[in-house]
Amino acid sequence: MTKKYIYAFAGEKTDGKADMKNLLGGKGANLAEMASLGINVPPGFTISTDACVYYLKNKNNLPPKLWSEVLAQLAGLEKTIEKKFGDSNNPLLVSVRSGARVSMPGMMDTVLNLGLNESSVLGLAKRTQNEWFAFDTYRRFISMFGNVVLNISGESFESILEKEKFKRGIKFDTDFSIKDLKAIVKKFKALVVRETKKKFPDDPMKQLRMAVEAVFNSWNTDRAVIYRKMNGFSHDWGTAVTVQSMVFGNMGKTSATGVAFTRNPATGENKFFGEYMINAQGEDVVAGIRTPNFIDQLEIEMPEIYQDLVSVYQKLEKHYKDMQDIEFTIENQKLYLLQTRSGKRTAESAIKVAVDMVDEGLIGKREALMRVPANQLDQIFHPMIDPKAKLKVLGKGLGASPGAASGKIVFTPERAQELAKNNEDVILVRMETSPEDILGMSVAQGIITAKGGMTSHAAVVTRAMGKPCVSGVEELIVNSKSKQCQLGGVKLKELSPLTLDGSSGMVINGMAPLIQSRLTRSFTSMVTWADEVRKLKIRANADTPHDAKMARKFGAEGIGLCRTEHMFFNEERIFLVRKMILADNDKARNEALKKLLPIQRKDFIGIFKVMEGLPVTIRLLDPPLHEFLPHSTREIKGLARELKVSSTTLLKKIESLSEANPMLGHRGCRLGITYPEIYKMQVRAILEAGCRLTKKGIKVNPEIMVPLVGHVNEFKIVREYILEVAAEVLKKEGVDLQYKIGTMIELPRAAMTADEIAMEADFFSFGTNDLTQTAFGLSRDDSASFLRQYVEQGLLNHDPFVTLDQDGVGKLIQIAVEKGRKAKPRIHMGVCGEHGGDPASIDYFNRLGLDYVSCSPYRVPTAILAAAQAVIKEDH
Amino acid sequence: MTKKYIYAFAGEKTDGKADMKNLLGGKGANLAEMASLGINVPPGFTISTDACVYYLKNKNNLPPKLWSEVLAQLAGLEKTIEKKFGDSNNPLLVSVRSGARVSMPGMMDTVLNLGLNESSVLGLAKRTQNEWFAFDTYRRFISMFGNVVLNISGESFESILEKEKFKRGIKFDTDFSIKDLKAIVKKFKALVVRETKKKFPDDPMKQLRMAVEAVFNSWNTDRAVIYRKMNGFSHDWGTAVTVQSMVFGNMGKTSATGVAFTRNPATGENKFFGEYMINAQGEDVVAGIRTPNFIDQLEIEMPEIYQDLVSVYQKLEKHYKDMQDIEFTIENQKLYLLQTRSGKRTAESAIKVAVDMVDEGLIGKREALMRVPANQLDQIFHPMIDPKAKLKVLGKGLGASPGAASGKIVFTPERAQELAKNNEDVILVRMETSPEDILGMSVAQGIITAKGGMTSHAAVVTRAMGKPCVSGVEELIVNSKSKQCQLGGVKLKELSPLTLDGSSGMVINGMAPLIQSRLTRSFTSMVTWADEVRKLKIRANADTPHDAKMARKFGAEGIGLCRTEHMFFNEERIFLVRKMILADNDKARNEALKKLLPIQRKDFIGIFKVMEGLPVTIRLLDPPLHEFLPHSTREIKGLARELKVSSTTLLKKIESLSEANPMLGHRGCRLGITYPEIYKMQVRAILEAGCRLTKKGIKVNPEIMVPLVGHVNEFKIVREYILEVAAEVLKKEGVDLQYKIGTMIELPRAAMTADEIAMEADFFSFGTNDLTQTAFGLSRDDSASFLRQYVEQGLLNHDPFVTLDQDGVGKLIQIAVEKGRKAKPRIHMGVCGEHGGDPASIDYFNRLGLDYVSCSPYRVPTAILAAAQAVIKEDH
Repeated sequence: MTKKYIYAFAGEKTDGKADMKNLLGGKGANLAEMASLGINVPPGFTISTDACVYYLKNKNNLPPKLWSEVLAQLAGLEKTIEKKFGDSNNPLLVSVRSGARVSMPGMMDTVLNLGLNESSVLGLAKRTQNEWFAFDTYRRFISMFGNVVLNISGESFESILEKEKFKRGIKFDTDFSIKDLKAIVKKFKALVVRETKKKFPDDPMKQLRMAVEAVFNSWNTDRAVIYRKMNGFSHDWGTAVTVQSMVFGNMGKTSATGVAFTRNPATGENKFFGEYMINAQGEDVVAGIRTPNFIDQLEIEMPEIYQDLVSVYQKLEKHYKDMQDIEFTIENQKLYLLQTRSGKRTAESAIKVAVDMVDEGLIGKREALMRVPANQLDQIFHPMIDPKAKLKVLGKGLGASPGAASGKIVFTPERAQELAKNNEDVILVRMETSPEDILGMSVAQGIITAKGGMTSHAAVVTRAMGKPCVSGVEELIVNSKSKQCQLGGVKLKELSPLTLDGSSGMVINGMAPLIQSRLTRSFTSMVTWADEVRKLKIRANADTPHDAKMARKFGAEGIGLCRTEHMFFNEERIFLVRKMILADNDKARNEALKKLLPIQRKDFIGIFKVMEGLPVTIRLLDPPLHEFLPHSTREIKGLARELKVSSTTLLKKIESLSEANPMLGHRGCRLGITYPEIYKMQVRAILEAGCRLTKKGIKVNPEIMVPLVGHVNEFKIVREYILEVAAEVLKKEGVDLQYKIGTMIELPRAAMTADEIAMEADFFSFGTNDLTQTAFGLSRDDSASFLRQYVEQGLLNHDPFVTLDQDGVGKLIQIAVEKGRKAKPRIHMGVCGEHGGDPASIDYFNRLGLDYVSCSPYRVPTAILAAAQAVIKEDH
Repeated sequence: MTKKYIYAFAGEKTDGKADMKNLLGGKGANLAEMASLGINVPPGFTISTDACVYYLKNKNNLPPKLWSEVLAQLAGLEKTIEKKFGDSNNPLLVSVRSGARVSMPGMMDTVLNLGLNESSVLGLAKRTQNEWFAFDTYRRFISMFGNVVLNISGESFESILEKEKFKRGIKFDTDFSIKDLKAIVKKFKALVVRETKKKFPDDPMKQLRMAVEAVFNSWNTDRAVIYRKMNGFSHDWGTAVTVQSMVFGNMGKTSATGVAFTRNPATGENKFFGEYMINAQGEDVVAGIRTPNFIDQLEIEMPEIYQDLVSVYQKLEKHYKDMQDIEFTIENQKLYLLQTRSGKRTAESAIKVAVDMVDEGLIGKREALMRVPANQLDQIFHPMIDPKAKLKVLGKGLGASPGAASGKIVFTPERAQELAKNNEDVILVRMETSPEDILGMSVAQGIITAKGGMTSHAAVVTRAMGKPCVSGVEELIVNSKSKQCQLGGVKLKELSPLTLDGSSGMVINGMAPLIQSRLTRSFTSMVTWADEVRKLKIRANADTPHDAKMARKFGAEGIGLCRTEHMFFNEERIFLVRKMILADNDKARNEALKKLLPIQRKDFIGIFKVMEGLPVTIRLLDPPLHEFLPHSTREIKGLARELKVSSTTLLKKIESLSEANPMLGHRGCRLGITYPEIYKMQVRAILEAGCRLTKKGIKVNPEIMVPLVGHVNEFKIVREYILEVAAEVLKKEGVDLQYKIGTMIELPRAAMTADEIAMEADFFSFGTNDLTQTAFGLSRDDSASFLRQYVEQGLLNHDPFVTLDQDGVGKLIQIAVEKGRKAKPRIHMGVCGEHGGDPASIDYFNRLGLDYVSCSPYRVPTAILAAAQAVIKEDH
């Protein structure tokens, strides 16, 4: 038996189905599906991807007998629709389209109106009763075929048109006379002869064969090959070719063409949504030659057709059980469907459509959960730029923290604070941010930085604040001294209006209009269903009572990372912190710590109150101490005065604390070992806060986390004195407070020796940011410049600071999980790095069987949904 | 049957043996061994470690019947030597000593002359015919027993002595009269009553029991516990107690005491070596009250005894098959051996003794190889401070590069170069060094830095240069501007004389006398034998023809790491390098590279020539580009002039290249991906050099190494263009040169994905320095301050930059080896980090079955020996 290479779609004579995308491509499969549903589709057939694979593997020879079968199909087609290929009265015209299993740029797209020649053009004129249209279509066909099949540059055809217009003194294509068009056809054909040394193929059969082979060959264009490489798609898939009879929406007032969505793609409202144009072809809608009508108007203009269309779209939606994006043509009062596919939609629409469809009994809850791209979920909490607005984009960086913001620009955190006091909206523009900028950042509407990647200081802090940020705008030149910056050729002074879009990374001149969406009932349903399915608990990274409140509002089930260092930057205490760091002896250090204790205790009381009953993981001090010290001469002088030492002495001390590679320096538990008094103060503050609330009847669930452990002995030493301090505090307060002591696993060595560490620790929290940095040997601050190039070149599929690198970093985590469980089967494990809010990474963490992920408060809904999706995927 | 807890040593009645160290302790086992060899040892017995373990586990109760057995042993002893415990005519006195299986500080050491009381002191006086001696011994015994058994501070006894001296106006203990001594005995006893509320125990049996229990209890002193923790020794071993009858070398002119080595411990010469003192006790030799005689003198003074001693030492050496360190006493013309143990020796002596013993048929070659501590081997190539010299030590840092050096101090590399031109010996003193200092370092005799660890820039570079260096001298304050420094309370101006010992880390005031040892015939034999045994090949890290020559001289079998960046710092080319880096466009960059090409080619020609036929692994440019740029204002201004740009522009460019964490920044193959033209130039230079020498009949074996690969795609991209350039060069030169392309495995991610990388690479070279940094998340430059504390506290057993951390970093290497071999079974693998020269690490690499290690030229002999020892250990 010979292999079946051709699948017809023609009413009852339809072989294909929607699930045959691998063989027929997306387009071909859906046309077949519609045809077999009894929907009126212009008939045609699809040559399968297998034929393409054969062709490319056999030195560009078609499979034996393929062509005779094509001819047979064509004959059938002619019979079905009672038209004839190349006929001068009633010609059959076809479109030829490529179609792979996934949409893929770089391949040959479409040739329309194939079959036109000197005689069939007359047939088209007769049938449409429009000679001008027939010849206009003919000259379009020649240039389209010439360009995509014969590889003649589109510009060559364009330049002929331009010359003809100039000669005649006309402006638009539509101003040509029929005679002009005929002359142009001649000139086009002459161009083809010049370029290809052959006549333009007049034989429709030859046109068809050339078009089919051109589609096959386009599978291997450079662009297509690179695209597949970048996306990890196989070169062996091949493309299908769909040959479909043409219908015309431009055959007078009883014809039309249109596109529609079965529901509103922006809001999700269950209402037919689209537009159409009378007496027009699909191209005309796209080109915008007239303003199309809203679809409602069709009910008035062609009530019967409209009813047909409604029953078709309802049928399609019911069949596909999803919102459809359809293309249709009305030819002489007859409705044809040209395409149906799943409709693209906003996050808001995705949620509403999915939830409504559950209510309508179309899909189940699990299916609904899979319908919403978790990654887009935080869109709906942030203001966004009105999609209708015209924008002057000055430049582009990384979309580091989602949402849009507008305001007057300032270049220093101090200036931001000054203006914010007067309720001005400000945008803080910096080379990069550092912990000293936190207060300024907290009052700004948004932050733009010239340096830094997706996990730079600015990115991490703003995401935690739920504040928009664009980082790594490489072309941005910032001059804080002269209070100006430059971007996209525009110089901006302080207080110039500027807008940023932290989702797309765009920086826009002036104040762009912003719109806001709201938490909907659908959203709540979606989250409830996700809660029922997921196994991972979702916690939030939150450092203040305000963040903690936000986190609970979004559904967080605890705090997975409370960074104590941010607490140290508050104006009233940074002086004490500095005094403590710069202390020359234990006595002076302990005095400063003593004053910090009640302040820290208050911090924890605030957070514990908000999180009543839920676990709160508090990380002891992590960054190197020099991060807390001033760096500008002015600040150093000021501090020296306050500390009553000379500037020189202070400067020397600051220099002696500075490090060549602070990320790999004296930080984390290394501080806890050389300066145990700091950690002891923090532990005391945590437990005193816990005890005092417990006495008031408030449930507190603290988890003390030791950062940057590389060797089990580091953890042992710190744990030992935590236990000592705890015993003392609990005894003094007279409270039997339960608490845990655990560690971050954020160094490769910790992962490799996780069994030893697990024996000592109550829990592990994977710090995937630092683990990614050390596994790759890549600083997130310094990598922006070349990491983007890596992703763009396809060297890496993702920025590993955004989506966990499963092959390398993931393997380290897997080893740690296995070793940790082997040593202590019930050890509690979670993730508190940035990846805790990334759906692809959450999928991986779910597969590893971790207990929870923790992410910034705004990402909590995303994480909740992603965790549910991960379970559903796993079950399949 | 009850357990045997007591082992006698008394001529034929000897139960113990040398291999029973675990049960009897080192001392007890060797005494038993000597006794059973028929050597005259004062008889005694050893209470086993098992008894100690029982005692400690059973609330300080001795095992049942132990004490009755001790009494029985004592009775036997009295009978054997015809003395009686506590006797007033001929008293038995004993020493009581602790002894664990390994020597361990912190435990009770020794009580001598136990058994003295008011009546036996008279017996001692009679026997020695020296009443003064008897009472002096008595008061010493009381204070010794009071101190170590009764825990009375030694100072309390001392202060009584001082008061008595003051009262009598005398200066030395020896000036006391017998009456004085008797008074002191009384006062000592009164002190004991005051301190312990009990009388000093007069009953010798009670003294003995208290001493035995004190030894057992001393197993658990804080110091002993910490020491065991730090060294990973078990707390369950326990200590033995040896009770031995006393003999006296101070019983007149026919008595003496001495210590001796069976061969020369400094040179290894096979000649009896030692000293003795007539009419003296062991203590006296140590206290240096008189100058002892050389052992040769004994042959004249007591020829028969000398002959006895010679036959004993020869018997011991033949028996133990090793050089022995012995203690002996002559009591009334009778020779007693008190101790024998393996003698401590210099590396030079160790080699000569081992090789001589092979010649003498005492031991085999493999045994000889195990006798030399590989780690000390490089001692013999470096000058060292004359051990006899009196030194004024100012401070101590890390012994970063072995050998000693003296010279005038300077604080800048420029000044070092100026003085070196006049043939002055200079010592370069810096806060820390950077690549810009290289030229200054290369002319200095030695380098001292205030910051930096064992693998800081200064340490690594000086070891490669074979130049002494002390790094991380924390107390050193350097002020380069005022040209002075301060250490150990001494201010040193420029040109002050200073000496450093890069082995011990000591910094010494003034010019200390240095001595030099030579390569000996024994050394050559040792290396030849090692070559026969070892499996690992030994290569050297060498960047210049000079280093390469040195490496071959020491036996290197190739170059495992040729760092191309050091080549860039040479005066004539640094300008071109900077021009290349600062180029604004490809054209300018390529012009600079074009000029660098012939220079690089010359570098490689030089190295290839020296290494003819041997593999040379060349690492493409690794450090971040900003390392090549100037940092001081003066230099920047100069460069700006040369480049014809403004200082501001240049400064901005330099700043834009600077990084927060350069170790994790834009370096290694990341440079090769963003600036392929640099690597292409280097590859061209390597292969052109190879081709040109090949044409002259010189065999060349280049291995091109891509640094810092984290993802296989990075390696793929670089490898692809290396192949292109290579094809072009080989074609142009018309030579079929064989070359390899491999990669460093120095990032955890590379280790975890080594299977993918192995599919593309010809070889792996483990960069254990960077792998240690990233696995621990620890910068070698910044860790000195707390890493030393880690090692001192026992948190880490070793500095992981010196000895490979097998549990963590080693596991990563193991994974990489396994994955790499699985993907490509015959892939070639070596090590080029600092650990390549560390014996403990070499042992691990041998077990992993790597092909080679590479280390600095001076460490090659160490590595050769260590590789042989690793094989021998594995075979056992």
